Amino acid sequence: MIEVELADILRRLRRVEDELAILRIIASYGPLVDAGEAQATAELWCADGEYDVEGWRMRGRDQVRAMVESPAHRTLIAAGSAHFQGPARIDIDGDEALAVFESLLVHRESDGYEVLRASVHRLELRRESDGWRIARRTGRLLDGGEQARELLSTFARRSGDRPSADPRD
Amino acid sequence: MIEVELADILRRLRRVEDELAILRIIASYGPLVDAGEAQATAELWCADGEYDVEGWRMRGRDQVRAMVESPAHRTLIAAGSAHFQGPARIDIDGDEALAVFESLLVHRESDGYEVLRASVHRLELRRESDGWRIARRTGRLLDGGEQARELLSTFARRSGDRPSADPRD
Amino acid sequence: MIEVELADILRRLRRVEDELAILRIIASYGPLVDAGEAQATAELWCADGEYDVEGWRMRGRDQVRAMVESPAHRTLIAAGSAHFQGPARIDIDGDEALAVFESLLVHRESDGYEVLRASVHRLELRRESDGWRIARRTGRLLDGGEQARELLSTFARRSGDRPSADPRD
Repeated sequence: MIEVELADILRRLRRVEDELAILRIIASYGPLVDAGEAQATAELWCADGEYDVEGWRMRGRDQVRAMVESPAHRTLIAAGSAHFQGPARIDIDGDEALAVFESLLVHRESDGYEVLRASVHRLELRRESDGWRIARRTGRLLDGGEQARELLSTFARRSGDRPSADPRD
Repeated sequence: MIEVELADILRRLRRVEDELAILRIIASYGPLVDAGEAQATAELWCADGEYDVEGWRMRGRDQVRAMVESPAHRTLIAAGSAHFQGPARIDIDGDEALAVFESLLVHRESDGYEVLRASVHRLELRRESDGWRIARRTGRLLDGGEQARELLSTFARRSGDRPSADPRD
Repeated sequence: MIEVELADILRRLRRVEDELAILRIIASYGPLVDAGEAQATAELWCADGEYDVEGWRMRGRDQVRAMVESPAHRTLIAAGSAHFQGPARIDIDGDEALAVFESLLVHRESDGYEVLRASVHRLELRRESDGWRIARRTGRLLDGGEQARELLSTFARRSGDRPSADPRD
């Protein structure tokens, strides 16, 4: 009887820890990429992880690292930038997870800061032997178009009527 | 002895799960409303839930759905919009909860993105048989006025000296 | 055997509660400081807490309170402001913790809202008898400079290759 309760508690506790671990990965991205920390940014991804974002299609950590080290990215952060992310909705299914959130790219101009881009992102995450990593990140500009809408609607389509609000479902 | 410990653990675990479930509801709102997902947005509310925000007073899910389907909202998202939310401070009391957070409404213009509005929101949430939902959401523009200030000060007034920082209080 | 499992569960549960408690402190700051709630803002800090931010070096709660009550801050919030914070990456080590996040200062102008500042913040937190508080908060403008970069890189430097993604590491 107690063993059954303990097994249930351990399952629920692991789910909570998983959700916080994934939030931690998402929260790590902005500061690392704004610092130009190419290696630490790339290590958020799986070795074979993918990153599709306006103008870039990266496959594997070397290509993520190359993006952070690119002249375009270095120029962007040299003036001062914030890859600013919103709260993420996360669904975990065993060793895989899905997260959706919006982001702003804020950039320092001569007379203040401008919002250069507003985007939506979908992350597919995978549990590896030493923790969660990003298997695929897809980002699209919020321009009213169909590609952005598909990412924004991720959880509306997955759960039917409504997102599950109970972690014990 | 072990039964007492287990009961305490289950109570604390449920509180943690509740807080994450509420964060998930808050994180769901932006992507769904920017996608124009009227039904999925409305389902974040209780059947008799309320939503008071500048210019709109909605009662029940049909009115939330009608807001998302309105020409004004459709025009807003057609150009590209982010209903971008900040981190939420949440207090849970049994089957009810209170959350406060700020938000930005970012909109695509011909030459970039503009912040059209900055607001503060207070959510009253209720646990229903299948999870947490919004019983009432109140939003006010951050214009230095008294209505915004009252929402911003929610937790300063509730807890006296300071917000409780310990989930085991 | 069960006692060992319970001790492990309690240790992991406490870590999860700690992380949520710290997120709650971070989420409290924006609404309180935008409301001008000087006392409640100051109480987020330890009695001997420090706050270093562009143009201000505060030592102790009285000086945090004085900043919130200053004419400069009152003028800022009178027009309407959002001290808008991004998601925080948190590392907890016993009774101490470290958090890093970015923020935007959004201000109401005659024709909309402007992003006046984008910054990065590092929080050192300490567990006190009644919960977590801020021991030191350091903020720097995201201007491409070395001081901002040092804060942004906090976790890249601490963890070597990559941030730990597993709360059970």
